Amino acid sequence: MDLFGVLGLDKLSHGLANLSMFPYFDMAHYTVSIMALREQPGALAVSRVSPLACWFSSMLYCFGGAVLSGIMLAEPPVAPLTNSTSVLLASIIWYVVFYCPMDLVYSYAALLPLRLVLSGMKEVTRTWKVLGGVTQAHNKYKDSLLVMIAIGWARGAGGGLISNFEQLVRGVWKPETNELLKMSYPTKITLIGAVLFALQQTHYLPVQKHHLMLIYTVFIVVNKSRMMLMGSSTSPFATIELVIYKTLFSDSSAYAALTSEVRKGCLDNGRTNTTTAVTKESEVSHAPVSPVKGSLTAKEESENTETTNCKKTD
Amino acid sequence: MDLFGVLGLDKLSHGLANLSMFPYFDMAHYTVSIMALREQPGALAVSRVSPLACWFSSMLYCFGGAVLSGIMLAEPPVAPLTNSTSVLLASIIWYVVFYCPMDLVYSYAALLPLRLVLSGMKEVTRTWKVLGGVTQAHNKYKDSLLVMIAIGWARGAGGGLISNFEQLVRGVWKPETNELLKMSYPTKITLIGAVLFALQQTHYLPVQKHHLMLIYTVFIVVNKSRMMLMGSSTSPFATIELVIYKTLFSDSSAYAALTSEVRKGCLDNGRTNTTTAVTKESEVSHAPVSPVKGSLTAKEESENTETTNCKKTD
Amino acid sequence: MDLFGVLGLDKLSHGLANLSMFPYFDMAHYTVSIMALREQPGALAVSRVSPLACWFSSMLYCFGGAVLSGIMLAEPPVAPLTNSTSVLLASIIWYVVFYCPMDLVYSYAALLPLRLVLSGMKEVTRTWKVLGGVTQAHNKYKDSLLVMIAIGWARGAGGGLISNFEQLVRGVWKPETNELLKMSYPTKITLIGAVLFALQQTHYLPVQKHHLMLIYTVFIVVNKSRMMLMGSSTSPFATIELVIYKTLFSDSSAYAALTSEVRKGCLDNGRTNTTTAVTKESEVSHAPVSPVKGSLTAKEESENTETTNCKKTD
Repeated sequence: MDLFGVLGLDKLSHGLANLSMFPYFDMAHYTVSIMALREQPGALAVSRVSPLACWFSSMLYCFGGAVLSGIMLAEPPVAPLTNSTSVLLASIIWYVVFYCPMDLVYSYAALLPLRLVLSGMKEVTRTWKVLGGVTQAHNKYKDSLLVMIAIGWARGAGGGLISNFEQLVRGVWKPETNELLKMSYPTKITLIGAVLFALQQTHYLPVQKHHLMLIYTVFIVVNKSRMMLMGSSTSPFATIELVIYKTLFSDSSAYAALTSEVRKGCLDNGRTNTTTAVTKESEVSHAPVSPVKGSLTAKEESENTETTNCKKTD
Repeated sequence: MDLFGVLGLDKLSHGLANLSMFPYFDMAHYTVSIMALREQPGALAVSRVSPLACWFSSMLYCFGGAVLSGIMLAEPPVAPLTNSTSVLLASIIWYVVFYCPMDLVYSYAALLPLRLVLSGMKEVTRTWKVLGGVTQAHNKYKDSLLVMIAIGWARGAGGGLISNFEQLVRGVWKPETNELLKMSYPTKITLIGAVLFALQQTHYLPVQKHHLMLIYTVFIVVNKSRMMLMGSSTSPFATIELVIYKTLFSDSSAYAALTSEVRKGCLDNGRTNTTTAVTKESEVSHAPVSPVKGSLTAKEESENTETTNCKKTD
Repeated sequence: MDLFGVLGLDKLSHGLANLSMFPYFDMAHYTVSIMALREQPGALAVSRVSPLACWFSSMLYCFGGAVLSGIMLAEPPVAPLTNSTSVLLASIIWYVVFYCPMDLVYSYAALLPLRLVLSGMKEVTRTWKVLGGVTQAHNKYKDSLLVMIAIGWARGAGGGLISNFEQLVRGVWKPETNELLKMSYPTKITLIGAVLFALQQTHYLPVQKHHLMLIYTVFIVVNKSRMMLMGSSTSPFATIELVIYKTLFSDSSAYAALTSEVRKGCLDNGRTNTTTAVTKESEVSHAPVSPVKGSLTAKEESENTETTNCKKTD
C-alpha cells in the first residue's frame, strides 16, 4: 500500500492507531448509547419505575459487546464491572441523561451538531472494539477465521445482538425481531469490519493494520455523518446485498434458464414436498416474522409471485 | 458378557467402535438436521428473508449439542466454529437444502428410502455424541454420575433442548412448550443412552463399552427405522413410563389403600391447603401449559376426576 | 466494635459463624424453596404433566444462586450437580413436597408454626450464601467492589433473579416483570447484605466479619418472622427507598426550586425534545410494564401529574 506513503497518510494512520479511547471517545460512546436507550419506547417510564433496571439496561447498551464476547469465549461476563472507572463514567452519564433536572443534558446532547460529533466519536470506538475482539480471538484460537469474525462482530455490535435480552430487563419482549433476522446498519458495518480485520490478521488481506484502521474508521464516520445529515436510513451496501441475494439465495435465474420440460418433470417428482413447502410458506405469512422493508420486501414479494406462478404451472 | 463372544459379535462391536463419523455419518447428521429445520413452520420464509438467521439456526441444529454442553461446562460455546471443515460441510449442506435450484437436493433427500438411510446414519452419530459428552464430563468430574448424564444428554440432544432459543433466532417464541415439559422421542432415547453410558463409565453397569455401543446403536437405528416405516410416533417406552408414572408420581393407589376414615381426618387437617391447591390447579387450566396427548392426558384427566371426587367427599 | 464484648455477644457471633449449614439449614432452605415453587400458579399442574420439568424447576429454586453466580464467573453451571448429597437431599424433599400421599408433608409444613421455623432457618442460609459469593468474587477479583456485590447478590438471590428462565422451564413466560423491574423483599435484603459484606471484605466497613454475620442474620430472621406473623408485605426500607428515590430520581424539587422564568426559557430551548419525550411516555403507558404498587405507584402518579402540569405551563 504505497499509496498511503504517497498521500502522506502513513503518519496519520499511525497517529490514529495510537489514539487512546479513554476518556473522551469512551464518553461519547456511553452518551450516544444511553441516549439511544432513552429513545426506545418505554425506556423513560422504566427509568421512573425502576432506576436499577434502567441502569442495568444502560450498562448492557454500553458494555454489551464485552459481555457477549465474554460469554462466547467462556470468560466471566462480569469482567466489564472490574473496570471501575469505565463503569463509574458510564453510570454518571446514565444518571445525567435520564435524571438531570429539566433534562438539560439530554436536550443539549440531542441537538444535531453536538449529536453529530458524539456519534462520529462513537463510531471511532467501533474500530477499536472490533479490532480488540478479533485480536482476543486470534490469541485464543490461532487459525480460526470464523471465531475471529464472530468475536469481533460480537464485541463491536454486542448491544444490538443481545437486544432481545436487554429489552427483557426492561420488561419488553419482541421475539418476532432480532438483529439476525433484520440487521440494522451498525450491525452490518460491524460485521464487515470484523471480516476485514480477521482477514488482515490472518494475512489474507495484504494491508497493514493501521492503514486498515484508518480506512475503516474514515468510512464509518463519514457514512454515519452522511446518514444523520441526510436523514437517510438506506444502507450503502443495499446494491451489493441485492446482487449477492439474487445470485446466491434466489433461484429465479435458475428457473428461467431451465426449460419448462425439465422443470415439470422435477416438480412431478417432488410434487408432494413442494406442495407441503408452499402450504408451510403460506401458513408462515401469519407468523410473527419481522416486517421487512425496502429491498428485502421487494425480493420477498417477487418471490411470493414466483411461488404463485409455480403453483399455477404445477 | 460372553454372549457377545458366542454370537461372534465381539469383532463387530470393535469394528463399530472404531468407525469414523467423519465425513459420511456427519454429513447424514447435518442433512437430516437441516431438513428437519426446513420442515419447521416458518423456516422457509425465514430462509428467504434472512439467510444469515437461517444459517445460524441450521448451525444450532447441527452443533446445538456441542454448544449446550460447552455452556454447561463453562467451555467456549464458539468452539464448534473452530472446526472449519465441519462448519464448511454443514454450511454447504445448509445451502443446497435451502437454496438448490428447483429444490433438487431436498426433494430427493426427502424420498423415503434415502431419508431412511440418512436417518439411520444420523442415529449412529447419536451414540458417539452421547459417549463423547459422558467421557468429557468424566474427565472433568471423576465421580459425578449426575453431571455425566447431564452432559451426555446435552451433547446428544442439544438441538432439542435449546429449541426455544433456536426458534428465537428465527423470530418464533413458543414458551408454552419445551423438551422438558414434553419430551420428544429423540430426547428420551438420548437421556436413556446418557444414563446407560454414564453407568458403564462408572462401572455400575457390568458391560464393556464397545458392546454397549453396539447394543445402543442397533436399538436406536432399528427403532428409528421402525417408526419411520410404520409412521408411528408412539414411544417404545410408553408402557414403562406409565408404570413409573403411576408408581411414583400418582397417589391414586395411596388413596385407595387408605380407609375413608383416615382420609377424612387428614383432609380436615389440611382443608385450607387442599382448597388452595385445587383453586390453583383450576386457575392453571387457562395457563399456557403445553397440550399433553396420549397416556399423560389420560392420567391428567383421571387425576382431575380424582380431585373432583376429593372435593365432593370434602 | 467493643459493644459486642460488653454485651457478651462475641462468643455468640463466633458460634454462629462456625455453624454448619448442612444438613438441617440446607434442608429448611430446600423445603421452603420447593414449597414456594409449589405455590406458584400452574406449578402443581406441571408436576403432574412433567415430573422432570418440575424437578428441574425445583433444582433452579434450590441452587439458582450457585448456577447464576457460576455463569457470571464463567464457572460450570452444572457444578451444583457434583454435590450429590445436596442434590439427593433436595430431590427427596422435592418428591415428598409434590407427591407425598395425601399431601401430608406439604400440609404439615405449611402450618404456620412449622413454616415460621423453616423460613427462619432458610433466612440463616442467606447470610452464608451471600458471604460465600462475596468471598468467591474477592478471591478472583481482589479489588472490585462491584463484582463482589454482583456475585454476592446473585448467589443469595439467584432463584429470584433467574425467575424468568425458571418459569420458562415450566412453560410460563412473563416478560413484563422481573426482579430488576420490581424487586421483591428477599432480593432487596440480599442486595443490601451483598453491599455490606463487600464493604466489610474491602475494609470500608470497620466491623468484624462474624459480628456482621450475627447482625445481618438476626435482622433478616426477625424481619422475616415479623412479616410472616403480621401478614405484612411492606418492606422495612420503604421510607429510605422513598427518600433516595425522591432525592436522586425525581426532579420535582429541582422544578420547584427554579423560577418559572428560567424554566420557561429552558423549555423553549428543548421544546421539541420534551414533547417527544412526553409522547413516548404516554405511548409507554400501554406497554406491558409491570404494575407497580404502593409507594412507587404514588410516585409515578405524582410524576404523571407533574408532566401534565408541565405540559399545561408549556
